[in-house]
Amino acid sequence: MSPHAPPSLADIEAAAARIAPLVVRTPLISNPMLDAACGGRAFVKAECLQRHGSFKLRGATNKIAALAPEQRARGVLAFSSGNHAIATAAAARHFGVSAVIVMPADAPAIKRDRATSFGAEIVAYDRLTEDREAIGHAIAKARGLSLVKPFDDPFVIAGQGTIGLEIAADLDAVDLVLVCTSGGGLVSGIATAVQARRPAAQVYAVEPEGHDDLARSLAAGVRVKNAPGVRSICDALMVEQPGALTFEIMRARLAGSLVVADEAVRAAMRFAMAELKLVLEPGGAIALAALLSGAVDARGKTVVVIASGGNVDLETYRALIGA
Amino acid sequence: MSPHAPPSLADIEAAAARIAPLVVRTPLISNPMLDAACGGRAFVKAECLQRHGSFKLRGATNKIAALAPEQRARGVLAFSSGNHAIATAAAARHFGVSAVIVMPADAPAIKRDRATSFGAEIVAYDRLTEDREAIGHAIAKARGLSLVKPFDDPFVIAGQGTIGLEIAADLDAVDLVLVCTSGGGLVSGIATAVQARRPAAQVYAVEPEGHDDLARSLAAGVRVKNAPGVRSICDALMVEQPGALTFEIMRARLAGSLVVADEAVRAAMRFAMAELKLVLEPGGAIALAALLSGAVDARGKTVVVIASGGNVDLETYRALIGA
Repeated sequence: MSPHAPPSLADIEAAAARIAPLVVRTPLISNPMLDAACGGRAFVKAECLQRHGSFKLRGATNKIAALAPEQRARGVLAFSSGNHAIATAAAARHFGVSAVIVMPADAPAIKRDRATSFGAEIVAYDRLTEDREAIGHAIAKARGLSLVKPFDDPFVIAGQGTIGLEIAADLDAVDLVLVCTSGGGLVSGIATAVQARRPAAQVYAVEPEGHDDLARSLAAGVRVKNAPGVRSICDALMVEQPGALTFEIMRARLAGSLVVADEAVRAAMRFAMAELKLVLEPGGAIALAALLSGAVDARGKTVVVIASGGNVDLETYRALIGA
Repeated sequence: MSPHAPPSLADIEAAAARIAPLVVRTPLISNPMLDAACGGRAFVKAECLQRHGSFKLRGATNKIAALAPEQRARGVLAFSSGNHAIATAAAARHFGVSAVIVMPADAPAIKRDRATSFGAEIVAYDRLTEDREAIGHAIAKARGLSLVKPFDDPFVIAGQGTIGLEIAADLDAVDLVLVCTSGGGLVSGIATAVQARRPAAQVYAVEPEGHDDLARSLAAGVRVKNAPGVRSICDALMVEQPGALTFEIMRARLAGSLVVADEAVRAAMRFAMAELKLVLEPGGAIALAALLSGAVDARGKTVVVIASGGNVDLETYRALIGA
């Protein structure tokens, strides 16, 4: 697989075989209240039940599993303060590969502790004055480490795409798939896999208001950036702009990008708690929010929403689901 | 099947075939933190992901599905303020059977609304001055309705026992199964199915402190009652004493009954939220609480805990998971 070419269906099938020993095949959950709310036949792909609480384990595992023995021997590096950091640390531990995680000094202690519990070396940086990519690339170069990028890598995209294979295996017909999107690795992989198996399926990205770089990039035909400083409760979905490779895939495959307000995300988190009995983090609930808020017309259709993760600390969760 | 004889494995297999169209085959969820916490290989049977949020749909569906056509034509009656009421109403709707639910006048509006949304007729009674069983039996007799008992019925026990078939199908080896217990229908059914397929498995009931009628009944060799007025956060697990039929099964099959304090249940609810990403009601978390609090030694063993339900309203949930 070229590092700059989109993964094929065969690449995603190879990823599925590679990651199977470490990754949970997550359930597709149906719910009568959800069907009633959207007027269609809805399924929630519960990646919050994935090991370590998010889909990120799939991509990181596929990337590390595909490294050559000499690359594995030197180790890997990732920069992330969140789910990708934990996933990379956990996957590296599984393969006996050393991992360096470049993380902001003010990252939540629970995420730092989780990464170190898998034996990762943490390199802290000052979020306000230092550039994590510059630090990460310098360390990777000096120590010969392989970079595990969060999204713009065909192996990472192929790993996330295994979710699409599972959806197609579980459902004979799929009309709509709604996928939370930040850099675009998840939606790129899922769209590639689902459309290979279910060509009629329409795949939509879903983004938070103020971080709608993809919607605007699709309209402009070139990648555009978000305005700096805009807040959203979807902390996992804040990226400057789409990836170069993922944008190429998303332009070719997506039906569009739906933009959802924070209040709809909170309502979806409450619905997930009360009806689905699933704990979702804000970014993990945004595709459900798009469905429940009517951002897309699902009446009479079979629709899959990706519930991408559930990593939210207890006090934040209590505050977010409050009335 | 005699109304007074324990269900056999064949009865439970027949139940599985009968309820399949309505009931979700729930996932067995594993989690690295849970394995680390108990020192064994642990699986959570997530019945909170069952339709309508609890295992109760299995037993109610099997009971109604097995009624003769003339019984179905007359209708069914259940008395319950909780999960069994909703399950009976939903199962009755599925089969086109009319349902009467005898419910306390002060039952939570959400539960009453849920039951009426399935077309059930609600008969309210005063919890302090009236006897629901007397009211229920009188109505059932006058109108020729079939009673859907919450636990002490072989069809209900067989329906709940389908969970045991699913566990045995998913796991080649099972050492321990921990099951929340009130009247005993769930644990009786699961023990019958699991021990038929995995004879070495030990099955434990788990009860809340102050409602340990089963532990004391097993010690005494006869059914004894709980002292009146003792409170527990496990609102779904408060019964006066074990059922007559279920006690017979439990005496023969259980390794014992573990008694767990409310504080351990709250800790298990928090663990389920933070690590498993599952919303559990207190009674649904008590088997997990037994495992996490060390009420049984699971080191080196394969252990299944039943997460029986997730029906807790949002404000109660927020309060219970608070520090």
